[in-house]
Amino acid sequence: MSEYAVVEVEAMAVADETMKQLPKGAFLTVKHKKRLNTMTIGWGTIGIVWAKPVFVAAVRNTRYTYDLIQREAEFTVSLPNFGTCRQELGFCGTNSGKDVDKFAKTGLKARDALKTTTPVIDIPGLHFECKTLLRAPIAPELLDSSLADVYPDADYHTFYFGDIVAAYRLESQGE
Amino acid sequence: MSEYAVVEVEAMAVADETMKQLPKGAFLTVKHKKRLNTMTIGWGTIGIVWAKPVFVAAVRNTRYTYDLIQREAEFTVSLPNFGTCRQELGFCGTNSGKDVDKFAKTGLKARDALKTTTPVIDIPGLHFECKTLLRAPIAPELLDSSLADVYPDADYHTFYFGDIVAAYRLESQGE
Repeated sequence: MSEYAVVEVEAMAVADETMKQLPKGAFLTVKHKKRLNTMTIGWGTIGIVWAKPVFVAAVRNTRYTYDLIQREAEFTVSLPNFGTCRQELGFCGTNSGKDVDKFAKTGLKARDALKTTTPVIDIPGLHFECKTLLRAPIAPELLDSSLADVYPDADYHTFYFGDIVAAYRLESQGE
Repeated sequence: MSEYAVVEVEAMAVADETMKQLPKGAFLTVKHKKRLNTMTIGWGTIGIVWAKPVFVAAVRNTRYTYDLIQREAEFTVSLPNFGTCRQELGFCGTNSGKDVDKFAKTGLKARDALKTTTPVIDIPGLHFECKTLLRAPIAPELLDSSLADVYPDADYHTFYFGDIVAAYRLESQGE
């Protein structure tokens, strides 16, 4: 695998940390059959629904990731340690998996997950493995009009409510 | 008002605390015209969407609260200090505002909010004032089949994504 040690965490006890890094960027990784992709996200929520720990990810219907996450009821979220991986986050937020292999281009590596067939990104930081329990597409008529300019091309988000089936930190050995 | 001091907080920096108390119960308060109600919730998520801090609340379509929150694009969430208000949370979780005035029965008091016309509950703890940006009703065909038994009567939740326009702690003076 890699040089990192797996340290399990309680997802609800790292919510602050998750929301501190998220605006700096996280990797949302999806896989369907042999097609693997990761994209940079800056939005999401974490909490408890159906008495389960959940991460809610948002993906626009125009994304390559959308095609994959719609076909497979899984995703993973990898949050780099605060302030790290800036270049990789920048690249994966401005290029599409339709056009390039982001792993080859950035040097990021996929790492086998513990509970999902979708891998995580092999970097130090927090990782959530999620099984999708609900897909909630935005219904434009139920969206506040103040947000209309976020969707000039009707490229609405769908929210994916994922049961966090594994949550852990990857740490450099000896950290 | 009350004996409590208002101490503003950064919502994303109290996510851990929110998720620690939420399973013990929080008050979801809604108001439409002169109709005011509060109910106990144990589920919800917190995070960042549309570059805004949001709290996502879930309300079943059979609830009295549902009728009010559908009519007014606001809600507040009041999280008692950890482990407190157990009796009041129990009462507001097992009685309907259709049948009883929960404020009169429990002694809970409403307190004027800072940014919403919907009040908060006048208790020490964390308070979020929210303006609804999106309503997302569960589409049964987009729900994982493992959750079917949560909805035996088709009493599905709608998720309310609320922009947290004010976040603060109410503290006893001299705390």
